[in-house]
Amino acid sequence: MNGAGSFSQDVKIRDRFWSRTRETVRREGIPYQWKALNDQIADAEPSYCMRNFRIAAGKEQGEHAGYVFQDSDAAKWIEGAAYTLRWHPDPELEATIDGAIREIVEAQQPDGYLDTYYTIKGLHKRFTNLKDHHELYCAGHMLEAAVAYYRVTGKRELLDAMIRFVDCIDGAIGPEEGKIRGYPGHPVLEMALMRLYDITHEEKHLRLARYFVDQRGQQPLFFEEENRKNHNDFHWKDSPFQYQYYQAGKPVREQQEAEGHAVRAMYLYSGMADVARVTGDESLRAACRRLWESTVYRRMYVTGNIGSSEYGEAFTFDYDLPNDTIYGETCASIGLVFFARRMLELDAKGEYADVMERALYNGILSGMQLDGKKFFYVNPLEVVPEACRRDAHKRHVEFERQRWFGCACCPPNVIRLISSLEEYICSVKDDTIYLHLYVGGSADVQVNGHKVHLEIETRYPWDSKVTIRVHADTQEKVILKLRIPGWCKEYTVSMDGKRVEGQAEDGYFAVCPDADTVISMDIKMPVTILRANPRISEDTDKVAISRGPIIYCLEEEDNGKALHMLRLCGAAPGAFSAEWKEDKLGGIVELNVEGIRESDTGWENVLYGDRPIESQKAQLTFIPYYSWANRHPGEMRVFVRR
Amino acid sequence: MNGAGSFSQDVKIRDRFWSRTRETVRREGIPYQWKALNDQIADAEPSYCMRNFRIAAGKEQGEHAGYVFQDSDAAKWIEGAAYTLRWHPDPELEATIDGAIREIVEAQQPDGYLDTYYTIKGLHKRFTNLKDHHELYCAGHMLEAAVAYYRVTGKRELLDAMIRFVDCIDGAIGPEEGKIRGYPGHPVLEMALMRLYDITHEEKHLRLARYFVDQRGQQPLFFEEENRKNHNDFHWKDSPFQYQYYQAGKPVREQQEAEGHAVRAMYLYSGMADVARVTGDESLRAACRRLWESTVYRRMYVTGNIGSSEYGEAFTFDYDLPNDTIYGETCASIGLVFFARRMLELDAKGEYADVMERALYNGILSGMQLDGKKFFYVNPLEVVPEACRRDAHKRHVEFERQRWFGCACCPPNVIRLISSLEEYICSVKDDTIYLHLYVGGSADVQVNGHKVHLEIETRYPWDSKVTIRVHADTQEKVILKLRIPGWCKEYTVSMDGKRVEGQAEDGYFAVCPDADTVISMDIKMPVTILRANPRISEDTDKVAISRGPIIYCLEEEDNGKALHMLRLCGAAPGAFSAEWKEDKLGGIVELNVEGIRESDTGWENVLYGDRPIESQKAQLTFIPYYSWANRHPGEMRVFVRR
Repeated sequence: MNGAGSFSQDVKIRDRFWSRTRETVRREGIPYQWKALNDQIADAEPSYCMRNFRIAAGKEQGEHAGYVFQDSDAAKWIEGAAYTLRWHPDPELEATIDGAIREIVEAQQPDGYLDTYYTIKGLHKRFTNLKDHHELYCAGHMLEAAVAYYRVTGKRELLDAMIRFVDCIDGAIGPEEGKIRGYPGHPVLEMALMRLYDITHEEKHLRLARYFVDQRGQQPLFFEEENRKNHNDFHWKDSPFQYQYYQAGKPVREQQEAEGHAVRAMYLYSGMADVARVTGDESLRAACRRLWESTVYRRMYVTGNIGSSEYGEAFTFDYDLPNDTIYGETCASIGLVFFARRMLELDAKGEYADVMERALYNGILSGMQLDGKKFFYVNPLEVVPEACRRDAHKRHVEFERQRWFGCACCPPNVIRLISSLEEYICSVKDDTIYLHLYVGGSADVQVNGHKVHLEIETRYPWDSKVTIRVHADTQEKVILKLRIPGWCKEYTVSMDGKRVEGQAEDGYFAVCPDADTVISMDIKMPVTILRANPRISEDTDKVAISRGPIIYCLEEEDNGKALHMLRLCGAAPGAFSAEWKEDKLGGIVELNVEGIRESDTGWENVLYGDRPIESQKAQLTFIPYYSWANRHPGEMRVFVRR
Repeated sequence: MNGAGSFSQDVKIRDRFWSRTRETVRREGIPYQWKALNDQIADAEPSYCMRNFRIAAGKEQGEHAGYVFQDSDAAKWIEGAAYTLRWHPDPELEATIDGAIREIVEAQQPDGYLDTYYTIKGLHKRFTNLKDHHELYCAGHMLEAAVAYYRVTGKRELLDAMIRFVDCIDGAIGPEEGKIRGYPGHPVLEMALMRLYDITHEEKHLRLARYFVDQRGQQPLFFEEENRKNHNDFHWKDSPFQYQYYQAGKPVREQQEAEGHAVRAMYLYSGMADVARVTGDESLRAACRRLWESTVYRRMYVTGNIGSSEYGEAFTFDYDLPNDTIYGETCASIGLVFFARRMLELDAKGEYADVMERALYNGILSGMQLDGKKFFYVNPLEVVPEACRRDAHKRHVEFERQRWFGCACCPPNVIRLISSLEEYICSVKDDTIYLHLYVGGSADVQVNGHKVHLEIETRYPWDSKVTIRVHADTQEKVILKLRIPGWCKEYTVSMDGKRVEGQAEDGYFAVCPDADTVISMDIKMPVTILRANPRISEDTDKVAISRGPIIYCLEEEDNGKALHMLRLCGAAPGAFSAEWKEDKLGGIVELNVEGIRESDTGWENVLYGDRPIESQKAQLTFIPYYSWANRHPGEMRVFVRR
C-alpha cells in the first residue's frame, strides 16, 4: 500500500464556497465562542471554562463548574482560532490567544499536571477515573491546540507546557511496575501525541501513543480493575455495547465492527492510523481498514453522519440507519474526516477522500447555521417538529440549531475543522502531488526539492469545471494525481487545451504537467437519484437526491407540510432542473422536479382501507442538506419516496 | 342515539376458534397464574401477591413485596377464574377461589379498608398518593372480581367486603368538607362502581363513580395539591403529556385527544361511557365520542393495538404509528374492547363492534402464546431480533413471549377477557337482538318478556358462512340485527333459504325472523390489501394483508430473514391463495402469493448508489398476526412493501 504523503502543505484558500463559511467562522464563531468560554453570553448557560483555569491557578475563588471535560472547550477554541491566524493574521486575536494560554499555563502544577477539575477538586484523586473523567481527553485536545498554535505562530509556551504534562502522564501511566496500566476513556490523546511526535520526533511520544493503542481492551480489562479499585460506576452495564462504548471491550486489533460512542471510535481509529503509519504496523493497519469498512460500508448515512442511536451516542448494527431517531453527531462526522485523511495517508485511495468530502459538504456543514451563530449536535435526515416535541424517542432531535450547548463539543469542533481546511486539500508523496478536494486557491508544495505552485479555480461544488494552473521551477517529472470523485461517472481532463486520455486508478487521474501547464477538468455532476443498499430497511422505496458532492433534502418551507406525502413518482434524473440561486441560503444550486403530492381526500376518519389514495402533480424543490433549518422551523427529509 | 342494550345475556360458546383458546386459558392459564400468585413457579420472579394478603391479615410475618398494585393480580385472577366457572363448572377451582377470597377478606380492616400495601406499610399513610399508589386501582379490580364472582356463583363474601371498602373510600374522598377531593391515578374503579351499581342500584355507588369522572382534571389540580401536601414526586414533569399521563390535566369534557398512558385512558373512557349511559349526560357522551374518534380514527394500529410510545406507555400524536418502536400493550387493547362495548351500549353502531373485533382477533390474542403459557406485554407490528438486542429504542420490544412479568398486568387481563367473551357477543334492546360477534354457540335472551333461543354455527373467522337458528316462544315481532363487519363489502342474508333484500344500516342488517327460522349469512371475506391512511408516514408504500377480521403478517420462519427485502410487487388480492392448514399454529388459514425478494447482489460494500437492485420471484407466506412468535424466534412484519 502506498500512502498519499503529507497533508502539511502551504495551501491558501480563495474559494467562493468555503471562504464565505470560513469568514463566518472567523468573524462570528471565534469571537462568540471566546465570549461563551468567558460566560459573557447573556442568554446561554455559562461555560465556566476560563474561570475554572483561574480558580485552578489560585487567582480566583470558587468551585469547578461545568463538565469534567470543560477544559477541552478552551483547547478547541485555541486550536480553531490559531488556524484562522494562518489565513487571516490578526494581532488582536493572537493577543487574546496568548492571554488564554497564559491563564491555562498558570493553572499547571509544578509536576506538569494540568486539568482544572482535579486541581480544584483534589489532586490526590487524579488519574483515578481514566474511564469517564476525561483528564486524558482534555490533555489530548490541549496538546492539539499547542501543536496548532506552535505551527502557525512558532510560539512554544503552550507546547512546552503540554510536553511537560505529557511527561507527567508518561510518568504515571504505562506498562512499567508501579504505573497505571490505563488508557483514555475518550480517545484523542493518541492522535495528539502523534502530532507532537511529528514535531519532536521524540521516541517517548510515539511510545506513549502506541502504548495507549496496544494496551486498550487487553485482559484483565483496565477499566474493570479501575472500577473495582476506585469504586467507579459503570454506566453501561445494561447496554448492548458494554466496554465497547469506549472501544475498550477487546484489543483494538480484535475489533471487527465500529461499536460504541461514535466520536470516541473515530478519534481512536484516527490515532490508530497515525501509529500504523509511523510504525508500519501491518496488523494495526489491517484493524484500521476493517473498522473503516465497518463504518463506511455498513454504518454511515448518505450525509456522512454516523451514530445511529442517541443511547450512548453510538453505533448500533449493520445497515441500521434510522433517519429520524439518528444521533449523527456533528463531532462524529468531524472525527470521520480525521480518520479518512489518516487512511489516505496510509493508502492513497479515492474512497477515503470521497468520505471526507461527503461528511464535509453535508453532515458536518449542516452542524452550523449559515450565519455561524447556532449549531446542531444531532443531524437528522428526517424531521417532523411535532415528533420531536411529542415522541420521547426523538426528543434529542432538534429542528432549530442551538446557540451553545452545556456540553459544547460540536461548535468549536466545527470551527477548528473549517478553519484548518487547508490540511485536507492536497498532499505530496515523493514525486506526486495529490489533489483530494477541489477548493479554489493555491498551493505551494515541494516535490523532490523543487517548488511547485498550483493555482486552483473552481465553482465547486456547484460547477463541474476545475482549472489548475501549474508552475514548477523544474523540468523534472512531477505527477499530479487528480481525484475523480466516486460519484462521478463522466469526466474529462485536458492539459493546455488538449484532452488527456486515460482512466482514474484508485480514484485518481494522473497527469504529468510540464513546468507551466493549465489543466482543465470537467467533473460532470448531473443530478443523481441515489438508492440505499437494499439491506437498509429504513430507506426501502425511497431515494436521496444528490448533485456532485451535495446531498439534497426537501424542506417544509419550499414544499409544505407532510413531506412523506410527496413522491417523485419515478422522475428520472434528467427531469430535474438545477438552477443557481444567488440569494437563497447563501447561494445554492436548487433542484426542482415535478412529482406528486398525495392527499388524504376520502381518508378522513379512516385509518386503514383498500380505497385509493388520490394525488395531484406537485413541484418538489430540493435544497442542499447542509442548508436546512436556516429559515422557519419545519419538516425536512433527505430520503424521499420514489 | 340509540344504544345496543344490555350485553348481560345467557350465552354459551361452542366455537372452533374460541373454545380451543378458552380451554387453553382454563387449563393452562388459570392454574399457572394461581401458582404464580403463590410464588410457586420455579423459574419466575416471585409475585408475593397472596403472601401480602396473609401478612396484612397478621397471619404471616414479613414486609410487603412486589408493586404497590400487586393486590390487583389476585383480583384479576379471581375475575378470570370466576368467568370460567360460568362455562365450565369446577368445584375444585371454586373452592380455590373461595380460599383466595377468604385470605383477601381477612386482610380487610375494621373500617372496610383493604389494600395490603398500606396495611403493611402503615395505615396512616393511606390515601396520600392517589396519583401513583394504585389503592383505588386495586379497589377497582377487586370490585370487578367481586361483581364477577357474585354474578357467576351468587356468593356475596367478596362483594360485601368490597361494598364496605367502597363505603370506606366514599367516606374519605368526595366533594364534602374535610374529604379528599381526589380521584384514581389509574382509572378502573369508575367502571367497577358502575358494575356494582348495576347490581345494587344504590345511588351512592353511581354518585361516587360520577364524582371521580367529574372531578378529574378540575382546577386547582388535585394531583398537584396532593404532591405539595404529601411531598409526592411528579415523575412526568419533563414529559410532553404532563398530567395528561393520568388523563387528569384537564376536565374530561375538555379533553380533545387520547393522551397519556393508553391503558388508563381506555379504562377511564370506559367508566365515562358507563356513567354517560346511566345518567344520560350528553356532554359526557360527547366527550366519549370525541375520545373514541381520537383513538380509533387517528391513533390506532391496524391490529387494534394502541400506545405508540414506550415512554409513558402512551399515545403520542395523530398518525404517529411506528411499527417497530410501538408500545401497543395487550392491556390497552383489552381496555379498547371495554370502551368499544360501552360505546355500543351508548349507540348501536357497527364501528364500535368493528374495533372490538379488530382488537380481539389480532392485537389482544397476539398477547398470549398458543399454549397459553407465555405472554406479550408489547405487541410490535415489525420485529428484527437484532434491533431489539442492539437498539436501545427497541429494547422494550420482545420477540419471544415471556412467562410472567414483574408487573403482571397483561396475562390475567387476557384471561379475564377471553373467559368472559360471552359478554361481548350479543345484546338486547327492547324488541331487538343485536349479534355483534360471530362466535359459535347459543344465546337465550329475553325480548319483551319472551324467550328467544339462538343457535349460531360458524367457522368464523376462517369461513364466511354463519348459520343462525332462531326459536322464539312468541309470534310477536322480534328484530334481529346482524352485524355486517366494516371490512365486508359483499354479503348475503337468507331466511329459510330465501334471500333477504336490504342493506345494513349503521353496520347492522335487520331481519325479522319468525318463531322458528334459519338464517344463513355469507359475509364474504376475500383477501384484502389494506393501505394505511396517507397521513401515517410509517406505512407509506406498504400494505397490510387481511382476510375477514384477521390481520396477517410475514414471519421469518416461513419467509427467511430480511423481510424488508420482500415485495408484493403489485400483486392483486385475487393473486393470493388462502388455504386451511389444520396442523399449523393451531389451525389457520394461510395466505400465499408470489412476490419478489430483492437481493443485495452488486451492493456489497456500497451503501448508496444509483445501481439497480436485483430481485427474484419469491413466494410470500402470510400467517395471522395473532399466531406469530409461536415457532422459532425471528423477524416479523405486518406492513409489507407493495
